[in-house]
Amino acid sequence: MSSNHVVTFNQARRVAIFGGTHGNEMSGVTLVNLWMGNGGEIRRKGVETKPFITNPKAVEKCSRYVDTDLNRAFTAENLSAPGGKDLPYEVQRAQEINRMFGPKGSADAYDVIFDLHNTTSNMGCTLILESSKDHFNLQMMSYIKKAIAPASCPVLLNEDPRLKYATVRSVAKHSVGLEVGPQPQGVLRSNIFEAMRIILKHALDFIELFNEGVEFPPCTVDVFKVSERMDYPRDANGNIIAMVHPNLQDCDWEPLTPGDPMFQTFDGKTIPYEGVGAVYPTFINEAAYYEKQQAFVTTRREALAANAIRKV
Amino acid sequence: MSSNHVVTFNQARRVAIFGGTHGNEMSGVTLVNLWMGNGGEIRRKGVETKPFITNPKAVEKCSRYVDTDLNRAFTAENLSAPGGKDLPYEVQRAQEINRMFGPKGSADAYDVIFDLHNTTSNMGCTLILESSKDHFNLQMMSYIKKAIAPASCPVLLNEDPRLKYATVRSVAKHSVGLEVGPQPQGVLRSNIFEAMRIILKHALDFIELFNEGVEFPPCTVDVFKVSERMDYPRDANGNIIAMVHPNLQDCDWEPLTPGDPMFQTFDGKTIPYEGVGAVYPTFINEAAYYEKQQAFVTTRREALAANAIRKV
Repeated sequence: MSSNHVVTFNQARRVAIFGGTHGNEMSGVTLVNLWMGNGGEIRRKGVETKPFITNPKAVEKCSRYVDTDLNRAFTAENLSAPGGKDLPYEVQRAQEINRMFGPKGSADAYDVIFDLHNTTSNMGCTLILESSKDHFNLQMMSYIKKAIAPASCPVLLNEDPRLKYATVRSVAKHSVGLEVGPQPQGVLRSNIFEAMRIILKHALDFIELFNEGVEFPPCTVDVFKVSERMDYPRDANGNIIAMVHPNLQDCDWEPLTPGDPMFQTFDGKTIPYEGVGAVYPTFINEAAYYEKQQAFVTTRREALAANAIRKV
Repeated sequence: MSSNHVVTFNQARRVAIFGGTHGNEMSGVTLVNLWMGNGGEIRRKGVETKPFITNPKAVEKCSRYVDTDLNRAFTAENLSAPGGKDLPYEVQRAQEINRMFGPKGSADAYDVIFDLHNTTSNMGCTLILESSKDHFNLQMMSYIKKAIAPASCPVLLNEDPRLKYATVRSVAKHSVGLEVGPQPQGVLRSNIFEAMRIILKHALDFIELFNEGVEFPPCTVDVFKVSERMDYPRDANGNIIAMVHPNLQDCDWEPLTPGDPMFQTFDGKTIPYEGVGAVYPTFINEAAYYEKQQAFVTTRREALAANAIRKV
């Protein structure tokens, strides 16, 4: 596909905004509840925008999940599993969501799903992209980046089959994750709340412009491509024996080069990074990833070419 | 009791360090586990120091508690409740801890219990005092404040019967709460970990000096006395309708005067503080206190006089 080619898409008539996929990530829970009460702010011409709480039981408990992580549950196996009420709560919920907003991979699926997340990591406003070939999403992210400049809005590309996971938003034709931090679990901070709200505003503005027939010219989008998961150093019993080094803590998106401090053991020793070349760590010291044996992920920078797009 | 009077206490031979009273407050959990493996760092002449995980089931789940908040469970009623294995887990645990380290209020109780907590609030290293008449604790806190200067170490006095609660540490003759933040639940940050560790070092040094016969002269300790609990603004259904104002967020221990911004509603309106005189808010936007209907507590500054102390 050459960069001169204009890619066409149908209008994005059906858009969903998901909150509470993790029940203790309060910005999305609060925004979605607010918009369910009064949708004026997310209304756009020619678009039906549906705010939706994906994991109401986890929201009620203010916990990440009840039985299993909903944002890893949208596998083909889960979505077709028999068992009904005997299935884990989040698997049942995944099937319901797939019926309402999918089916995943079908022509009937919603056009766009935004899934709102918070992180304890110092990631700012991060957009998560699941495919480097999705020119609609690339153009949307380019639009958002320009709209909020000089504030920054990193794009995290997670398409490596070894590392990507079956997200709630993957039900849609175009899936957009929004990860805003730092914010502790169970806490609502006004700065994080407002930052998330502004990203959504620009995203919906983009969709309205697209639907109105605006053609977006070819562009380049700088992304951070997920490269490797890094676990905490552990002893033979699996217990953590070191913390994220103070020089790395809160330094999401900053370069980590071989020899730089990475972990600090409880007796004060520094463990340096020993990989090849500079990487850009993110999700540094995210609370929810201790159970996933992940201290951070490394990323590498890439510039993705987005073709021009316009509606069919 | 005049300030010239020297108060005498028995040597503090039995000291406990509690971690995991809230299972998702990781600095205390990690330090106590570390010291259970190797106690060299907390060993002092003539003192038996016992590191102890108070709520192991909550630690395993990485949640604040299993059935009920252990740090509110040490009421006379709970400690004498019949029921055995049918009682809520934390009530059973309170009875066990009371047998091991108490009984509360008796001559057999441990001399000193340190209880290690983290908060999502920007409280730095805070010492929590439960009685303005405990000259041993006042002297210890004065010692710690001097030892870590110019770093600061606020003392929070919570002795108002309307506001204080039946803590785990209340089992001891001298109970010391240590609250270090900001740190998200479920996260271990190296700066918070090391800050907590240093406070404990100085506290144990003080006990060793006291046991050796050092007399500590009269002194004055500046404290922040808990005054009032402030809830979030809510609608008729009890739902929160405003957040901590960005001007107040992270400003624990700084003066809040009438007219200052206190909350920000979701539609951007500012709700000012309308109390009488300056107060010093703390526990601002603590994750665990949403369920307790508390956005922050106000405190007022006081200078407490501590008598000279020495061992009997």
